[in-house]
Amino acid sequence: MNKDGVLIVLSGFSGAGKGTLVKRLMELHEGYALSISATTRAPREGEMESVHYFFKTREEFEQMIEEDAFFEHAEYCGNYYGTPKAYVEEQLSKGRNVILEIEIQGALKIKEQRPDALLLFVTPKDAETLRERLTGRGTESPEVVEQRLSRAGEEAEGVEHYDYLLINDDLDTCVEEMHSIIRDARFRVTRNLGIIDEIKKSLKKGE
Amino acid sequence: MNKDGVLIVLSGFSGAGKGTLVKRLMELHEGYALSISATTRAPREGEMESVHYFFKTREEFEQMIEEDAFFEHAEYCGNYYGTPKAYVEEQLSKGRNVILEIEIQGALKIKEQRPDALLLFVTPKDAETLRERLTGRGTESPEVVEQRLSRAGEEAEGVEHYDYLLINDDLDTCVEEMHSIIRDARFRVTRNLGIIDEIKKSLKKGE
Repeated sequence: MNKDGVLIVLSGFSGAGKGTLVKRLMELHEGYALSISATTRAPREGEMESVHYFFKTREEFEQMIEEDAFFEHAEYCGNYYGTPKAYVEEQLSKGRNVILEIEIQGALKIKEQRPDALLLFVTPKDAETLRERLTGRGTESPEVVEQRLSRAGEEAEGVEHYDYLLINDDLDTCVEEMHSIIRDARFRVTRNLGIIDEIKKSLKKGE
Repeated sequence: MNKDGVLIVLSGFSGAGKGTLVKRLMELHEGYALSISATTRAPREGEMESVHYFFKTREEFEQMIEEDAFFEHAEYCGNYYGTPKAYVEEQLSKGRNVILEIEIQGALKIKEQRPDALLLFVTPKDAETLRERLTGRGTESPEVVEQRLSRAGEEAEGVEHYDYLLINDDLDTCVEEMHSIIRDARFRVTRNLGIIDEIKKSLKKGE
């Protein structure tokens, strides 16, 4: 079986608790690594190179784009952001499961390049709960509510291409479900096509 | 979340231990049901109606084909065999995980109709082990060996469309992996499109 780690792409609604989920997962279970983004924006107070970001100049970043060194990249508020392949691949080859927190459009670009990527989407337990969280139970202005709902709608665009839906109702339950799905992902056919090819070849040798 | 049971389609190489695997899974874990095939062949000694098969006349079977009552059916040695939808759907709606043992071509027909079906393929741990089992370690005639290899090749045709590969090296390990994959399957996006639609609708109501 393929001994590489599993590449996990995690998306979800704002306020669904992605950050907390990942933090708790990594506290409770070994063998995980977070993907580190590259950016051209200046480091903020306390941000460390190769820990929070790989900080790059525009020239370096554009050079990396040319070399196809990113799974995906985008420009946002005048700065580049991207997911460098090298770090992710290095961690995977060490057997670590790499988590990449990213929105759906970026996730689908990764899936194209790595069909074995496991796409997980985190959601509150139902539409009502999500709506309550987004609308702030009537305490927000109609404009803010409208903005949030519309942004959440965008956040869910393309979710039908995902593999699993994580229902973050109880945090620890959700963490264990996520861990179990990732553990099982080792057996996905998409990442074991090598074994299958080997088996098929072996069967043909006899013909 | 969708409370229905999971529809599991199990395929694999002859001699990979599918039968033993299913038997052990059902001994160790609750909530499973086996799909029951319909056939026009006569019952054999000890075979019971609605337990081993649904026994049908040719007329009844052809009537069922007309009514689109099968997930898939085929004629083999002058008799019809098929998988009636009604029994499977009834078990699923009771929350039972239904296991359907079938070869790949039939499995892919089921996947077309039920994209939420979980397709599992059982294999020995590597090509060598499979080859050893099929060739009988040199004790079989070249003709028998050739036939077996060729049949195994057919058995693997289309396996890249499956979801998970089960490596049946140690039986109890394989059973627990299978059970875990099935438990996690409750969270697959393909069977929770209802929740997603509901969430999307709820977000649109506010626009």
